[in-house]
Amino acid sequence: MAMTAYDVEGEVDYEKVVKKFGASLIDDSLAKKLDHPLVPELFFAHRDLDKILANPKGFAVISGRGPSMNMHIGHLLIFKFVKHLQDKFNAFVFLPFSDDEKLLARGLTIEHVLQMSYENLLDMLALGFDPKKTEVMIDLATLKQEVYNLSIEAASHMTMSTVKAAFGFSDDVNIGIHFYPGMQAAHILYPTKKLGVPTIVPIGIDQDVFVKLTRDVAPKMGLAKPGDIMSKFLPGLTGGKMSSSKPETAIFTTDTPDAIKKKIANAFTGGLPTAKEQREKGGNPDVCVVYKYLRIFFGIDVRKQCRSGTYLCGDCKGILTKEMQKMLKDHQSERVKVEKNLEKFSPELGDLRNKFKK
Amino acid sequence: MAMTAYDVEGEVDYEKVVKKFGASLIDDSLAKKLDHPLVPELFFAHRDLDKILANPKGFAVISGRGPSMNMHIGHLLIFKFVKHLQDKFNAFVFLPFSDDEKLLARGLTIEHVLQMSYENLLDMLALGFDPKKTEVMIDLATLKQEVYNLSIEAASHMTMSTVKAAFGFSDDVNIGIHFYPGMQAAHILYPTKKLGVPTIVPIGIDQDVFVKLTRDVAPKMGLAKPGDIMSKFLPGLTGGKMSSSKPETAIFTTDTPDAIKKKIANAFTGGLPTAKEQREKGGNPDVCVVYKYLRIFFGIDVRKQCRSGTYLCGDCKGILTKEMQKMLKDHQSERVKVEKNLEKFSPELGDLRNKFKK
Repeated sequence: MAMTAYDVEGEVDYEKVVKKFGASLIDDSLAKKLDHPLVPELFFAHRDLDKILANPKGFAVISGRGPSMNMHIGHLLIFKFVKHLQDKFNAFVFLPFSDDEKLLARGLTIEHVLQMSYENLLDMLALGFDPKKTEVMIDLATLKQEVYNLSIEAASHMTMSTVKAAFGFSDDVNIGIHFYPGMQAAHILYPTKKLGVPTIVPIGIDQDVFVKLTRDVAPKMGLAKPGDIMSKFLPGLTGGKMSSSKPETAIFTTDTPDAIKKKIANAFTGGLPTAKEQREKGGNPDVCVVYKYLRIFFGIDVRKQCRSGTYLCGDCKGILTKEMQKMLKDHQSERVKVEKNLEKFSPELGDLRNKFKK
Repeated sequence: MAMTAYDVEGEVDYEKVVKKFGASLIDDSLAKKLDHPLVPELFFAHRDLDKILANPKGFAVISGRGPSMNMHIGHLLIFKFVKHLQDKFNAFVFLPFSDDEKLLARGLTIEHVLQMSYENLLDMLALGFDPKKTEVMIDLATLKQEVYNLSIEAASHMTMSTVKAAFGFSDDVNIGIHFYPGMQAAHILYPTKKLGVPTIVPIGIDQDVFVKLTRDVAPKMGLAKPGDIMSKFLPGLTGGKMSSSKPETAIFTTDTPDAIKKKIANAFTGGLPTAKEQREKGGNPDVCVVYKYLRIFFGIDVRKQCRSGTYLCGDCKGILTKEMQKMLKDHQSERVKVEKNLEKFSPELGDLRNKFKK
């Protein structure tokens, strides 16, 4: 298994990675406090979460988005969790867009990443974040002076050796990517600078390194160390990693009902070669993506029906298709509503609509 | 001799450096067009100046300032030259402050560099720039979104190898310094992006490398290559390099008449051990800093009087002291006037006054 912030290969041994990172698993007491069905199944590890949840002044949540493409349902899951934290703990939420990093790391044009920032923004805000307790920032469109200043301060405390050791960059990589951990730290620390409370970063485990670097510089900047909540990777529909760049592995928020149906029809399951065999012996839910999606996204557990051969793969796929079509239909209608109300978040988001509405 | 953008050691063989850089000396025809008494004596070399002066749409001038300390008269000279270009060619002038770089390279606090940006800003604007054709930007206070975006675009085209080769950084240097050529390119290219005309950068010859890197990336960004006008180093009062960090080598815009008098009294001259000897044999203006300052700053040439022994060093120092005191007294009074009128340049500069006025 090889994992950097820019690439993951092979099977992930999560407990091993957490130990290697010097992070902690979420225990029962923490899970109870977080009070969410996907803790600890999906959101399973953390740094300093116990300490930050006990902070008398509260905490903020920051969750960024690298807008290279449309969002898929795995992304939605993370931001739904962020919304849960806002509701549960009355937390200020900061949603920064690292479109600058996408330009730098993927060679995308500024026009493309800005359009994607706007599309992704609608997906995020459609989840119902409280406009009074939520701030959005798109680096290449609505960069805050305070955030730029924090990036410079953070960068002043990060040597090239540290960043190279953390990311394994070679010298043919551009200077912007090398600088990016400074801006990432600024994203993470902005609510702390503004509100004087620590931040929690819900994050894919492969991105933990950014939080780690930020934890090293925060005290040098007179700021509280951020904590994080790490999630496992969601399996893609075809069994491997879910990846935006392989559309067949993921369901996007913009997918049509037909596309959803087709993708789920081709999903990797734990079924047997023939219907007859499966009715007799039952399927294997432990390797089945459809089983996993039903649990993770809709809290539906069909283990018994699968094991007993009562439900065949077609049945489960049918349920998942209907649920997913309904979820995304509702999501898309919320998306349309929120687009009309961007001013509730800030006047500049209203300006973005005039520029980027399709 | 060793020269990087961050350090210069030993005597500079200017013609050799220009040749090595692949730049050109300013010839008679160009000097005539520039029409300034310090061309080509001080401003002596260039890139693409002939081409840019002939551009039918005109050009802009950009001249930055790294605000680590108060400005000295050497800095004033550069900005007076910029003002001359504005007057002569009706050119748009962009004056960006790289306070972020000073924080990164010198470990200065944000409060210090911001205060210095403001002080330096007053010195610059006291020279009489036209508010209608001049824009100021302080990276850590009034950063423009367009400039940040240009810095990311420029950085995406600069590899770490290129920057290392240009500056000779080692890996214990922070990531912000490594990124800085991207922001420097953004400063240089901002007027081109905004107005569609090429820029000219009047610059100390040691800083030419930033322009060179910018010239390499500009076409990749669809922008015209900038040109530059390089200046030689001014000798310090004590004979070595003029340096802000050695106050005895420079006269600052904030120096009192007494401080000016004292510094000039201690200046390095071409005098002889005794007054008697000097009256008989004459002094040596070619090594004399006082002689050089009289010529460069005030257009006063005392070569004959020095050579003939008519003027002794005390006489020349007396003239220089009076002229310098008068120049800086006038400057300081213009500085007070412009501080009251910062809004003429932009509302945000007015806000800065409320924050930083002493």
